[in-house]
Order: sequence, then structure tokens, then C-alpha cells
Amino acid sequence: MNLLFLGTGAGVPAKLRNVSALALMLLEERNAVWLFDCGEATQHQILHTSLKPRKIEKIFITHLHGDHIFGLPGLLGSRSFQGGTSELTVYGPKGIRQFLEVSLKISGTHLRYPLTIMEFDDGPIFEDSQFTVEALLLDHALPSYGFRITEKDKQGALDANKLREEGIPPGPIYKRLKAGEAVTLEDGRTIHGSDYVGPSQKGRVLAILGDTRPCQNAVKLSVNADLLVHEATFSGDNAEMANEYFHSTTLQAAAIARDANARLLCLTHISSRYGKEDWDQLEKEAQSIFPNTKVVSDFTNIAIP
Amino acid sequence: MNLLFLGTGAGVPAKLRNVSALALMLLEERNAVWLFDCGEATQHQILHTSLKPRKIEKIFITHLHGDHIFGLPGLLGSRSFQGGTSELTVYGPKGIRQFLEVSLKISGTHLRYPLTIMEFDDGPIFEDSQFTVEALLLDHALPSYGFRITEKDKQGALDANKLREEGIPPGPIYKRLKAGEAVTLEDGRTIHGSDYVGPSQKGRVLAILGDTRPCQNAVKLSVNADLLVHEATFSGDNAEMANEYFHSTTLQAAAIARDANARLLCLTHISSRYGKEDWDQLEKEAQSIFPNTKVVSDFTNIAIP
Ligand SMILES: [Zn+2]
Ligand SMILES: [Zn+2]
Repeated sequence: MNLLFLGTGAGVPAKLRNVSALALMLLEERNAVWLFDCGEATQHQILHTSLKPRKIEKIFITHLHGDHIFGLPGLLGSRSFQGGTSELTVYGPKGIRQFLEVSLKISGTHLRYPLTIMEFDDGPIFEDSQFTVEALLLDHALPSYGFRITEKDKQGALDANKLREEGIPPGPIYKRLKAGEAVTLEDGRTIHGSDYVGPSQKGRVLAILGDTRPCQNAVKLSVNADLLVHEATFSGDNAEMANEYFHSTTLQAAAIARDANARLLCLTHISSRYGKEDWDQLEKEAQSIFPNTKVVSDFTNIAIP
Repeated sequence: MNLLFLGTGAGVPAKLRNVSALALMLLEERNAVWLFDCGEATQHQILHTSLKPRKIEKIFITHLHGDHIFGLPGLLGSRSFQGGTSELTVYGPKGIRQFLEVSLKISGTHLRYPLTIMEFDDGPIFEDSQFTVEALLLDHALPSYGFRITEKDKQGALDANKLREEGIPPGPIYKRLKAGEAVTLEDGRTIHGSDYVGPSQKGRVLAILGDTRPCQNAVKLSVNADLLVHEATFSGDNAEMANEYFHSTTLQAAAIARDANARLLCLTHISSRYGKEDWDQLEKEAQSIFPNTKVVSDFTNIAIP
């Protein structure tokens, strides 16, 4: 599991930072990629990575500002053109359906894969045997959401070698042992699943937040998260401007990570007013509040252990 | 007057060629830029040029395929964000209005300049004292148009020095002389405007065509044009495939330029199946039919003398 930042700038594309997009690489977990936001030219950024558009299984949209969605119609079309045939689901706030349906229809884009568009509100928006995804409303100029992605705990593996060594051949009881049951064998022995199952593996938790002012839901989504992705459009001394434009400063984002007891904070959505020479300073000021902070750049790749 | 090619690829963006866009630089003529088509990431391409988005006065859309329009909402938004305040008009086939209105509304994009959207059909679509623009339907999978841009002839300049030398002081009669009239002076002399007006300057003609199979309207738009911009999605030996996908080959485009008696042919919309090493060959085969052919690339800049 790793996060590949595809666009880390704010508002408009700049030479050093494209507009927002972020790929959660779940290749080992489910041979799939989940995309979060899709600003214009996200597909162009992808051309410079090993990411295969046909592997994109889900796209989550935090909010409908152009710098977060204008790359969507093109990416969906190119995924089809390049041979993608597997289903894709786009989750977004109300309005994403009309934007996509009109864009695809007007442009005569015929997708050769099933596209599902889910408009969501506060609450759980996806669950399967591996993951849950929950959305909560943040505080921005138009409805902007944060996502809490929770990987389910993985049950420990059954030690089949040990069982075979003890003369217990494979069969239906393996399943019962794996579920932790006590089983009485034909020879009269009673054995306990817990003696043959390795330790379970705690699932990871990610919080990926859309544009926002500091707010309580940002903390709620990030509680004990292994990784929090938070915007930091402005430097610490620009709190007034951040408030006026419904954004956060580096210091405000760091305070959210601290209050939520997150493990690692990635700051993105950096305004182009800050040149390359300023990024260190942005990182340092956030670290004064939350030491494990990283200001990310386009193509930064973060492994989530 | 020069043409700056911003995107010269076909269908989907590739590393070496972005999707379609083309800037007609009219800085000397009217301190303005006209854009033809606006594929995704056109604004990103512009970042690598000296073109100022606020100078874009008109955008002409040949057809609504995604690789020709998906960069439009982002460019319009950024032009405003970057301080553009002058009016902008987008001319496009029916459907462009719905695409733009929905995209801008859904994304909460508020433009700080007047935007006019004109949906056109066959015929004249613009005229002022400098230029006329005419559109004609071509032959593509959805309605695709070509444009004939005609610069009006420029009247010769009045030779004020010569007039002053002959003792004819500036005044209302200068205007009549410039208009070619004969004027009788107070001293009884009759002088003729034609003796004091330099040669008039013939206006230039450009034909900029959208995606198309070879067709009669392509010739009609290009008759005696100083420059014809024509798609060449496929190489000469792929006429069958070109026909199937409603495109043209290099040879077909060259035949249009020859039949229309154009002066220079620029081939664009080159499929990414042709690598850098093939471009020379594409150019050579077109030159076998129309010698003054150039296969253009992203950022090729053509002066139109
Ligand atoms: Zn926003
Ligand atoms: Zn087309």
C-alpha cells in the first residue's frame, strides 16, 4: 500500500505542481488503484508513472472545484481507449453525475467498461471484505469532504504445517480452527484454533481530506490514522487569508494531525505563491507543531507500512 | 501573425504530443490571440510559452470530441484567476454551450470577465474591420467544422511627407485623398489620391480544419489559402483505417492542399502510433503530392508572412 501524489498544487496548474490528484496504490491488496480527485492533466501526470489507468477501480472526489475534477472526463475516456474493460466507480458530491454525464455525452465518449457514478453524503460510502470508506463534510466554499479509509484487520494465517505434523490432515475442520473454534478430533483429542492461528494483522487507516478550513470533522476523520493527507494552501502566518478563502495553513493542518493523534501528516495543495525555496520552511513550521510532517510534491511516493 | 501549435497529437495525450490546440497570434494585428480547439492541458502547454491567457480574445472549436474541448473549462477559469478581465467569445458547434455552462456551474467557477458562447452552423460566423471567419461542415464521426480566416486587404498608407513637401498641409482632405478621391485645392490644382497612397496590402487567408475524412468542403475552405492546417492521423498506407475512423492520411491531406492551391500545408493530429523516428517519413510522403508540407510538433511556431 502506498500513496502516489500526482498533483499537489492549489487552484491552477503551475510548472512545478499540477492540480490535485492522488493515487492510493493497492496492487498487493487487490490489484487495483484508487484515485482521490482528478484535476486537469492527471492523465498526463500518469504518463510519467508506472500506473496503468485500467487498474483504476475507484475514483473518490472530495469536492467539485475545477482543480479537483476537470481531468475526470479525459481520464475516463483514455482508460477506455487504452483497453480498460473492468468496472469503474466514481464517488463524488452531488453534481458529479451531471458533470460527467454531460461531458461524456456532448463529446461522444463511449466507454467500453461499466461506469457507476455514486453521489454521496456524510457517512459510510463503501464497504467490502477488505476496506471501509467513510465521508464527512468539511468546511469549504462549496461542499468538500474528507475520507477515512479503514483497512479491515487481517485474520492470522492457519499454520497448516504444524497441523499436519501433529497428524491432523486437511479437511473441513481447518476452516473451523481458523475461525478460532475448539474441535474434538476422531481420536478424542480436543484442539483449539487459537493454538494454530498466527497473530492477526491490524488494518491501516488513512485520512484523505479535501480543501477545508480547520474543523472538527477533520479531526474526527483522522483519529489514530496511520497517515493524514491535509491541504496546506498557505503558510503559517497567513491564517487570515486562509480563512477568507476557506483553506488551511501549515500550522492549522499540523494542529489537526496532533489533535487526532495521527502517525504521519502529508501536506499538499500548496499555493504556487511558494516557490521551491520556500517548501522547506513550510515543512519546518508544521513540524514545530507535528514533528512527523512531510510537504509532498508531484510524484512523491509514500509507503504505508 | 503566426501560428503556435500547442497540441498536435490525436485522441489521447502522449508524452511527445498533447491533444489538439492551436494559437493564432495576432499581437501586431489586434493585440490578441485566437485559439483553435482546446484539448485537456492546453493551459499547461501555455505555461511553457510566452502566451498570456488574458490576451485570448476568441476560441474556435472545430468539434466536440474530448481531445478538442476538455481543456476549455480549466483554461477559462485560470484566465479569470490570473486577472483576465476582457471579454472572451467561444464559438463552437451545438452542445458547446451546455458543456461549458454545466462545467462552470458545477465547479463553482465564477469568471470575472464577460463570456459569450456562440453556437454556429455552416456559414460566416464572425466579421469585423480586420477579419472574416467562415465555417463549413467536414466529414467526421460527429459534426466537425473547418474555418477559413480571411484578413481584409489593408489600404495603402497615405504619404503625408510627400503631401507636405508639395505644400498641402494636413486637414480633412487627407481623408478624402486616402479614400482615393480627386481633390481640387484652393490654389486651383487638382490632385489624385492614388498618387499619394501606397500599394494596398493583400490580406492573408488561413484554413484551419477539424478532424475529417477528405471532402469537398475541405478544398473549398482552403482555396488559395496562405496556410492550410489539416489533420493527418494516419500514414499514407492506412487509408482504410483512416476512412473507418473518419480521419485522413498524410497523402489525402496533401491532395486537399494541392487541389485547393494552398501555399503551405501544416499536418497535425498525428497518431501516437508514429514515433519521433517516423515523422520525417510522414512529411516526405505528403511532400510527394504537395511539396510545401510540414509535419508540425507541439510548440512549432509558423510565421505567416
Ligand atoms: Zn477547493
Ligand atoms: Zn475527432
